[in-house]
Amino acid sequence: MAKPKRTVEELYAAARGGERRALGRLLTIVERGGLDADALSELAHRDAGNAHIVGITGSPGAGKSTLVGRLVEDLVKAGKQPSVLAVDPSSPLTGGAILGDRIRMEDGDANAFIRSMATRGHSGGLALAVPLAVRLFDACGYDPVIIETVGVGQVEVDVVGAADTAVVVMTPGMGDAVQANKAGLLEVADVFVVNKADRPGANDVRRDLDLMLDLSHMTGQQDESGYRPPIVMASAINGDGNEEVWSMVEAHRQHLRDTGEEQARRRHRIRTEVRSRLAQALSEVAEQLMDEGGADQLRRAEVAEISPNHATNELLNQLLKEDL
Amino acid sequence: MAKPKRTVEELYAAARGGERRALGRLLTIVERGGLDADALSELAHRDAGNAHIVGITGSPGAGKSTLVGRLVEDLVKAGKQPSVLAVDPSSPLTGGAILGDRIRMEDGDANAFIRSMATRGHSGGLALAVPLAVRLFDACGYDPVIIETVGVGQVEVDVVGAADTAVVVMTPGMGDAVQANKAGLLEVADVFVVNKADRPGANDVRRDLDLMLDLSHMTGQQDESGYRPPIVMASAINGDGNEEVWSMVEAHRQHLRDTGEEQARRRHRIRTEVRSRLAQALSEVAEQLMDEGGADQLRRAEVAEISPNHATNELLNQLLKEDL
Repeated sequence: MAKPKRTVEELYAAARGGERRALGRLLTIVERGGLDADALSELAHRDAGNAHIVGITGSPGAGKSTLVGRLVEDLVKAGKQPSVLAVDPSSPLTGGAILGDRIRMEDGDANAFIRSMATRGHSGGLALAVPLAVRLFDACGYDPVIIETVGVGQVEVDVVGAADTAVVVMTPGMGDAVQANKAGLLEVADVFVVNKADRPGANDVRRDLDLMLDLSHMTGQQDESGYRPPIVMASAINGDGNEEVWSMVEAHRQHLRDTGEEQARRRHRIRTEVRSRLAQALSEVAEQLMDEGGADQLRRAEVAEISPNHATNELLNQLLKEDL
Repeated sequence: MAKPKRTVEELYAAARGGERRALGRLLTIVERGGLDADALSELAHRDAGNAHIVGITGSPGAGKSTLVGRLVEDLVKAGKQPSVLAVDPSSPLTGGAILGDRIRMEDGDANAFIRSMATRGHSGGLALAVPLAVRLFDACGYDPVIIETVGVGQVEVDVVGAADTAVVVMTPGMGDAVQANKAGLLEVADVFVVNKADRPGANDVRRDLDLMLDLSHMTGQQDESGYRPPIVMASAINGDGNEEVWSMVEAHRQHLRDTGEEQARRRHRIRTEVRSRLAQALSEVAEQLMDEGGADQLRRAEVAEISPNHATNELLNQLLKEDL
């Protein structure tokens, strides 16, 4: 006999009680979005707020998956209950690999929870799904919650920059430091890892980073407390430096607490989430209007009877309470 | 004595009369956005609608700038008055190069107008500025209006896909065909150019493309009229194939006219522009609300008194005419 489908409330209670399958189902709900995800958001926000949220990013091939895998192993050995949200960005180049690694990683450990999340072509859904998934892990007792992304573009800056601690992984010979600087990752990074540090050029990467950090300190870009992101040389695959990476992550958390910055980051994160939700909701309302109520304005714009600008203003007047 | 600052109307009239400096000033207004740009949009939409809008994209290093430069030379020789809008996407890797080429190109020809447009970090502004810049060129008598972008990501698909004719430039040995397919460029491309066709692997690129086109025809992705994007082998720097590229672009335009697709593309373009404008305006309204009227909801969400979801719904109720 088929079991009746459980409600979001039931799944949430089960996931909080440690049932992995329930948590997996909830994460699928998170990924899909919609009313069930909203209901889950209402439930989880009361129970979350304890986990250390760690963002890890870097170019494809920088060895993030290996590093994260090793960190997870070490954390489990140390009695922690880590979770990983591997965000599969829209980049078509990195689709498959991230998932494969994830599955291998999870097989090993019942105390870790690893989940890959795809963006399905646009980043709007991601902006809503990632904070909710993190909150869910947090509410279910997972700590730390590691968010892993691939790449050094705006999406990664947004996702990783919203964490408590942002780790940026680089490798020799890829021009990573320069690229990360241009993408704005330098400003959000709290810990740098130069992975594959046994390869030629590792010290060049370190020197480039050091120089850029010097410059950003001089121009006042870095945080006022005088925190300077450490640069850890590592070879994740050999296990070299992994412990130091984590101890720097912990040290950064301590710094956040000592300076009161931890609460500020949380507030910023909530604000960013509300902004994303608002943008997403407004864009849905706008699409609906274009499909239905705004058909006449659109038609007139299409035949150049009115300008696109004019059509937009009329649509806005239909939507918004006050005139702009 | 300083001349009085000209109004948008005066600049527009001067630009339509052939004054290049006035057009340059208007393009700066377009780039900045705001009320002057809106006023310009009202003026230009009445006079536009004649130019053939051609999008050209491809990976960095594919030789697009060279190709576009040669096409512009040929078009001027043929008595045309082409313009180029070189869109500098947010990718940090390709920032500088595109501008340098542009300037060299423009020096040569008084009958061509070349303008580089930067996104300044986010693509929202671009989505408004590109259609307006194109409309302005069109209204000033430039034809064709060529939009050049760098990259094979979503921004490029959006920009180039909104043209009448989309040209995708590839080169041997970069895995371009596979990447373009994944990014969705295959569906929007009307003409493929395999540039640097004298290099090893050029025929492989052609074969890959042919295969993918076969598959997409089989699965019905391509347009119902049976149009199949031609693949032109070229070496832009030697001048080989450039003429064929343009004759394929012209042939595609003829196809659009024969099938009535030209009007459909224009309508789609207007619709996309209204959608972008609406999204941009709504996001500005939302930011304003978050800074001012929504401060209380945000504060409550920040201390987890209400969920981000709840805060968002309250903000939406403040903004929108009807309850959701």
